[in-house]
Amino acid sequence: MVIILKSDPDKNKVDNLRLWLEERGITAHETVGISKTIFGLVGDTGSIDIDALRALDIVEDVKRIQEPYKLANRKFHPDDTIIKIGDALIGGGNFTLIAGPCSVESEEQICAIAERVKASGAVLLRGGAFKPRTSPYSFQGLQEEGIRLLKKAREVSGLPIVSEITDSAQLPLFEDVDVIQVGARNMQNYELLRRLGKIDKPILLKRGLSATYEELIMSAEYIMSGGNQKVILCERGIRTFETYTRNTLDISAVPVLKKLTHLPVIADPSHATGSAELVIPVSKAAAAAGADGLIIEVHNDPANALCDGAQSIRCEDFEMLAGKLKTIAQCAK
Amino acid sequence: MVIILKSDPDKNKVDNLRLWLEERGITAHETVGISKTIFGLVGDTGSIDIDALRALDIVEDVKRIQEPYKLANRKFHPDDTIIKIGDALIGGGNFTLIAGPCSVESEEQICAIAERVKASGAVLLRGGAFKPRTSPYSFQGLQEEGIRLLKKAREVSGLPIVSEITDSAQLPLFEDVDVIQVGARNMQNYELLRRLGKIDKPILLKRGLSATYEELIMSAEYIMSGGNQKVILCERGIRTFETYTRNTLDISAVPVLKKLTHLPVIADPSHATGSAELVIPVSKAAAAAGADGLIIEVHNDPANALCDGAQSIRCEDFEMLAGKLKTIAQCAK
Amino acid sequence: MVIILKSDPDKNKVDNLRLWLEERGITAHETVGISKTIFGLVGDTGSIDIDALRALDIVEDVKRIQEPYKLANRKFHPDDTIIKIGDALIGGGNFTLIAGPCSVESEEQICAIAERVKASGAVLLRGGAFKPRTSPYSFQGLQEEGIRLLKKAREVSGLPIVSEITDSAQLPLFEDVDVIQVGARNMQNYELLRRLGKIDKPILLKRGLSATYEELIMSAEYIMSGGNQKVILCERGIRTFETYTRNTLDISAVPVLKKLTHLPVIADPSHATGSAELVIPVSKAAAAAGADGLIIEVHNDPANALCDGAQSIRCEDFEMLAGKLKTIAQCAK
Amino acid sequence: MVIILKSDPDKNKVDNLRLWLEERGITAHETVGISKTIFGLVGDTGSIDIDALRALDIVEDVKRIQEPYKLANRKFHPDDTIIKIGDALIGGGNFTLIAGPCSVESEEQICAIAERVKASGAVLLRGGAFKPRTSPYSFQGLQEEGIRLLKKAREVSGLPIVSEITDSAQLPLFEDVDVIQVGARNMQNYELLRRLGKIDKPILLKRGLSATYEELIMSAEYIMSGGNQKVILCERGIRTFETYTRNTLDISAVPVLKKLTHLPVIADPSHATGSAELVIPVSKAAAAAGADGLIIEVHNDPANALCDGAQSIRCEDFEMLAGKLKTIAQCAK
Repeated sequence: MVIILKSDPDKNKVDNLRLWLEERGITAHETVGISKTIFGLVGDTGSIDIDALRALDIVEDVKRIQEPYKLANRKFHPDDTIIKIGDALIGGGNFTLIAGPCSVESEEQICAIAERVKASGAVLLRGGAFKPRTSPYSFQGLQEEGIRLLKKAREVSGLPIVSEITDSAQLPLFEDVDVIQVGARNMQNYELLRRLGKIDKPILLKRGLSATYEELIMSAEYIMSGGNQKVILCERGIRTFETYTRNTLDISAVPVLKKLTHLPVIADPSHATGSAELVIPVSKAAAAAGADGLIIEVHNDPANALCDGAQSIRCEDFEMLAGKLKTIAQCAK
Repeated sequence: MVIILKSDPDKNKVDNLRLWLEERGITAHETVGISKTIFGLVGDTGSIDIDALRALDIVEDVKRIQEPYKLANRKFHPDDTIIKIGDALIGGGNFTLIAGPCSVESEEQICAIAERVKASGAVLLRGGAFKPRTSPYSFQGLQEEGIRLLKKAREVSGLPIVSEITDSAQLPLFEDVDVIQVGARNMQNYELLRRLGKIDKPILLKRGLSATYEELIMSAEYIMSGGNQKVILCERGIRTFETYTRNTLDISAVPVLKKLTHLPVIADPSHATGSAELVIPVSKAAAAAGADGLIIEVHNDPANALCDGAQSIRCEDFEMLAGKLKTIAQCAK
Repeated sequence: MVIILKSDPDKNKVDNLRLWLEERGITAHETVGISKTIFGLVGDTGSIDIDALRALDIVEDVKRIQEPYKLANRKFHPDDTIIKIGDALIGGGNFTLIAGPCSVESEEQICAIAERVKASGAVLLRGGAFKPRTSPYSFQGLQEEGIRLLKKAREVSGLPIVSEITDSAQLPLFEDVDVIQVGARNMQNYELLRRLGKIDKPILLKRGLSATYEELIMSAEYIMSGGNQKVILCERGIRTFETYTRNTLDISAVPVLKKLTHLPVIADPSHATGSAELVIPVSKAAAAAGADGLIIEVHNDPANALCDGAQSIRCEDFEMLAGKLKTIAQCAK
Repeated sequence: MVIILKSDPDKNKVDNLRLWLEERGITAHETVGISKTIFGLVGDTGSIDIDALRALDIVEDVKRIQEPYKLANRKFHPDDTIIKIGDALIGGGNFTLIAGPCSVESEEQICAIAERVKASGAVLLRGGAFKPRTSPYSFQGLQEEGIRLLKKAREVSGLPIVSEITDSAQLPLFEDVDVIQVGARNMQNYELLRRLGKIDKPILLKRGLSATYEELIMSAEYIMSGGNQKVILCERGIRTFETYTRNTLDISAVPVLKKLTHLPVIADPSHATGSAELVIPVSKAAAAAGADGLIIEVHNDPANALCDGAQSIRCEDFEMLAGKLKTIAQCAK
């Protein structure tokens, strides 16, 4: 940590600051520049409150030079984390496809899609049971019944299942779900993260709409600091000024998160773009950028297509896409 | 709602769409333009899933022309909502000051600040007990003990208290808190909002870091649709590319939210700016823009200033500010 | 400047870096922390290319601790710059109103508005002659004729005139214009800025849609480094995810820019909001935040209102507003 | 265009509006909904000023349903535009690599890099002569001499050259440059665009930092409406809240721009990321998303690496990358 002092600071206050730091086992190395003096701090600065230092009237600015996350930090854990879910592996050079419908609607729907996406190469089945919706008047998912149908589809297809939790009170319902997803809107629901740190189950953690890389990793750190090291990070688009697409997929997030952490990093092109026709090029892009996998919404084009979301591709599109993704993922290495 | 069809759409599919709409009691008025055909829908389109319509291959775009919120909508409730909390009134032309420390730290601290801010004109006392922190390693607030100390300060000062909830499991602890605050990070924690809709207590709902006006109002609608009409909206800065300030206070939010809804609208200059020296000008700006009040962090400048947040002003600054705010709030009318 | 080295850097490369710095008269003070080593640089680092340092494989990051602007910097010029234009003063505690139509349309229009806004307290007349329009098919302003009409209105009303330049080739036409405005889209048109640095005329420099405070000040520095010290900074809204308003007026820009620089800082509520009904509350907010003045679009409500922009208020609204702004500007001090 | 009227609008004003539209050859088809009335306009609405309509007090909102660009619109020109520059082709299924140093520094440097990148598969040489720099105190490029050296490198290598113009006054110097680049900061320098519309030379137009897709296309339309149809669009990252990377490459821009227009669309991973180590994965991503090519900064790793930008990869990295890009570009089809 580096403290930049204001010009001509009160000498007594500087001494007080130095003393206060020393009480905490931290030495301040002084560099007197032309117009400013800086303190380079030596010692464990992890517990120092930067905002408190910034509030001092002799301090102009404080700059952290060390990442605030430890368990998720690639520097301390150079090897890739590989998470095993049934027969599926995520991380460590594997390219893993997770697919399924936006919402679970019926046994026929979820089982049919499960079979189709498995045949095309998906190794995990996704499906929404609890749907966080902007409007209280919108359909909120089949909830408990949705989880039951997902398990049914797992039975039929053999695919482990992934579903989103929206409140810690739902945890008992997720006991037999293979991967618990934390959605973008709950990325900083710290009470929920803390609870998920106490269970032994992979957590698919989506980046919040306006979360920085560091904030996403700190949310992973919440889970990991509770004891659960099985966190999968997911880039799903951020909010920007561009409104043509629902969100803006931040493609650099993939290589950056893989550099900063040892956790698997996947992408969600469906929510990032909000448009079926963009899912295919953006999926390819994420694979090319080195993602460890993708989570894609797929629908089975029934007679009444009006019920399917704008962002889901058809099973046949998924099949064609899956083939090309393999080649691209190879080139990403 | 207006549906814009693609050029030369398949006639059968257009008929199917028209039929599907009619089954839902909606008539489609056709306007054939030079290059596009549009359907102006007549009927209750509230339950129609826009994304599903957009997913149809004959549809180019769908535009909603009606607000998706009802209970919070100024159009259906032209009069200002006025919320009474003890002797304090929020909304309806009153200008209400809420003040207090960032975190509750001790009985002496919270009681001393309560007395000081009351004397300066604050009518509600704020204080954090449960602190949502980006890092799992940071101080998370005094929690239950913090709530107890707040109540103590209420006893001493007579000021009703405001504190932030971070999980619905904490609700029993908030039974005797006068106003429950929902922080920016929980603005779309829909399970929590739903629970707050079932209680009879004012809710101070902060705008999320990347929430649009409409999304903030929809979150209020979640609470109101449960039966609790006492919602106070709070602009607290949004996330933009500018990083000099912690967030960017969106001053237009004040008049816009007051136009779109009948709910009281306040501003939080402390979190918006993250800097004590900006709290004063930005507070004045919010009052001038017509805010119904402000929530401001105040500290009592103890010997060891290192414990106070960078964004809190001192009690004496608050006192001077409060005087000017009265005049400005008059000019806002 | 502080250089943060990677862990276990190659010793030869570190020596090379130190040597390279010394050749440039810069000493590197080393602080060896637990996990990182930092160099605090002493000497004139102004000409060092940060990106080049960052590109070195032994360097993890480089942090600048000094502002890159000199002439505009409040630290080196503590007194407010006051700019005199005819009888009008901008800066130094004066509150200055600039008003006029979006576009100059006719002699009657511009002269009528000039008289009206002068009577209400405006001391400068604005009017667009060269209009930067997103579409090549839109009306681009009366251009040369517009400038001629503005001068006519100055003759009649006695108000000095402000108009926007969009290319340095137009400079001869602006010889007799009192204040030259640089629009948001040209804030980083460095060739234009350089040319404006060579003339002796106040420049009203608008913040770009996605420009940081520092970038805006650096653009002022371009003009000032050419010799022209008369720069007026203008906050006119930035681009964010919120699309209800045309832009998001960043109210904190006013106190921050006044702290960082000694230049006058005004705000443009008309372009910031894009809506006449928001101009009034947002104007008040900017005055309350300490702005040195405002530039406001005003129209004279002719029979055929279809020609006026959505963001212009009527002369009578401006009159009422101007009265309240005086009181508010007093409270801002 | 659709006009949404306010509830209970003044009947006379509605008739006036209808009349005003009819005078302009536009018929208003009325749809009376439950709470609102809308006008679907039939006729050429291209010249209607939306802001003027929005300013009417009977109008709640106006929604455009047609793109405001014509010459660049894929709907009216379904076939890909293919631009031929010497032996190089851009667009129409070709994958084109443009490479070279950030700045032209010396004859040795530019010629050496030209030979190397040509050998690796680049078909155009880029090099900055006029550098738009945030600071007036930074190196602004070799300017005229830089252009001369680029031509020298073209002579030696046979590669056509691409360089950035920063002011229309520089046009004579660019007479013999093969492709003129317009940088992000000048994307809305309309006077410059207009001048480039009058010459017969390909223009590489970069997206502004906060420009929407539509605004980028409208800037292309400025050039095209002048007569020059040879415009290459370039995604180079937008400004968001994430500051770890210099900008956020918007990968969806590639497929979206290719859908909306018939122009070639390339990406610039160097400026988008600002970091050499991210150039490789992001280049692959852009190729996978269907880009027609890439423009990449390459340096030749001299002894004194301090002079090279942080965002340039070495010639040997470029060579390895170019090989993989071919395979990926195939998978993008």
